[in-house]
Amino acid sequence: MKPVILAFPDMRPLAADLAPLLGAEQLDLAWRHFPDGESLVTLPPDLAGREVIFLATLRDPDRLALPLRFAAETARAFGAQSVGLIAPYLGYMRQDKRFHPGEALSAPLFSAFLGESFDWLATVDPHLHRNPDLSRLFAIPAAHAAAAPVIADWIGKNIPDAVLFGPDSESQQWVAEVARLAQRPYEVLQKIRRGDRAVEVSLPDSDTLRGGTPVILDDIASSGQTMVRTLQHLDALGANAAVCVVIHAVFAGSAYEDILAAGAARIVSTNTITHDSNEISVAPLLADVARKTGRIT
Amino acid sequence: MKPVILAFPDMRPLAADLAPLLGAEQLDLAWRHFPDGESLVTLPPDLAGREVIFLATLRDPDRLALPLRFAAETARAFGAQSVGLIAPYLGYMRQDKRFHPGEALSAPLFSAFLGESFDWLATVDPHLHRNPDLSRLFAIPAAHAAAAPVIADWIGKNIPDAVLFGPDSESQQWVAEVARLAQRPYEVLQKIRRGDRAVEVSLPDSDTLRGGTPVILDDIASSGQTMVRTLQHLDALGANAAVCVVIHAVFAGSAYEDILAAGAARIVSTNTITHDSNEISVAPLLADVARKTGRIT
Repeated sequence: MKPVILAFPDMRPLAADLAPLLGAEQLDLAWRHFPDGESLVTLPPDLAGREVIFLATLRDPDRLALPLRFAAETARAFGAQSVGLIAPYLGYMRQDKRFHPGEALSAPLFSAFLGESFDWLATVDPHLHRNPDLSRLFAIPAAHAAAAPVIADWIGKNIPDAVLFGPDSESQQWVAEVARLAQRPYEVLQKIRRGDRAVEVSLPDSDTLRGGTPVILDDIASSGQTMVRTLQHLDALGANAAVCVVIHAVFAGSAYEDILAAGAARIVSTNTITHDSNEISVAPLLADVARKTGRIT
Repeated sequence: MKPVILAFPDMRPLAADLAPLLGAEQLDLAWRHFPDGESLVTLPPDLAGREVIFLATLRDPDRLALPLRFAAETARAFGAQSVGLIAPYLGYMRQDKRFHPGEALSAPLFSAFLGESFDWLATVDPHLHRNPDLSRLFAIPAAHAAAAPVIADWIGKNIPDAVLFGPDSESQQWVAEVARLAQRPYEVLQKIRRGDRAVEVSLPDSDTLRGGTPVILDDIASSGQTMVRTLQHLDALGANAAVCVVIHAVFAGSAYEDILAAGAARIVSTNTITHDSNEISVAPLLADVARKTGRIT
């Protein structure tokens, strides 16, 4: 029997791309919301003996946690042979230390929660900063695909004179790899964070700006303020309008509009989170890592 | 050392009532929401060796599940001697069977989820229908207080000529007990449910209506449609405007306004869910059951 892929509603387009790559059958998962804040997950009942793969992107993880748990447990109750999770965006990874006394250590707690429900996990570019890799967080097989090759490919085709900028030191790992693959120059700016939304960026002296079209690359745009400040800094230095590329289109609140208003020539993202800005598909990379991690047969 | 009670924000008033009854110290729990759907729970760090009691009412259980889990695990990480949960309203109890094939069995799954996080649980009148008691759902010590005595007391003081009505057979258990304690007559109507919001009520012939002020009593008002129909039926029979009494003020969407618009003379609830209609305190009953169930010393 073929493996089964069951997508939470906003991930159905990606599931349709993944299913043939994984040799899986895409079936429907329903997630119904009640006005009292409860919800009801319904699976196809015929899962006995099958490898079941859930596809859920973990933006809004609080809202998704219990439905995910219920879905995994129900698949097991229906006799699934294995229950895996493809989470193209893995939430909570930024809360990787107690920034103030008493805070919950959300990154390992969330990982443990997922590890109790699923047999394996595959994701794309988790925001690993203090945790060097997923195996430090997960007791189950957990691995990630790097989006750098598909981003470098997109840049090569669409912005051949790109000059890459990383808005802060945390973006270094992504920018350096994309720059290497795209064979384009890059520069990483320094960020000083003051509270949740106030972010200052200091731009080092550089001649790089005059070399082509600026492309600002980051793994996540959440409040969007990091992108906004970087756009403002480049603009103040007389650069051309920059293209903003993000792996994960979190775009909380008015982030997307704020980045456009700050003068972005264009905003481009991968499809790890469904958004109008999606132009780069991670499906082939994600299928590869899921097949290996989940030992999909 | 005194036990510690930590309330989720909307439960702080009830925690202030419970703390002296439990001989507990009320400390602050912070629950901060980020615009990307993540949140951060912060506890007082000095919990080592103490009995920790969380107070969270489980309306909106999807949104609360992960913060509850994180809070419990963090209290353990800080050395709590025990970690209990007072959940004055226990969500998900109505999903106690697969009404259609493939549905998650939410009531036992939610109970299991809570049982993994907490050492014991105390609640008020859970909606137990197909599950006869909490011990069938929970592997941890779990017990409930019945609000009937405080409701009967309130009715005796405020509506001495009350004639009680239960809107459907599921309300029988609550109405019969309140009527017995208040020494007032009661009658239970028959409900035929058609889908989520469409509910029909058939009123049996009765002389009871002419005996006093109608009081419609139910454990939960969620969509409010059951209350609305019952009000309409009583009105069509020429009864006086009825008082609506509910244990749990779930009131999803416009439920509260709909019940008022249907002609309720007054809507009264207990404080298991914080709401403007709260007039009856469950604090003493809840303190008793929590002390016994959690073996609070």
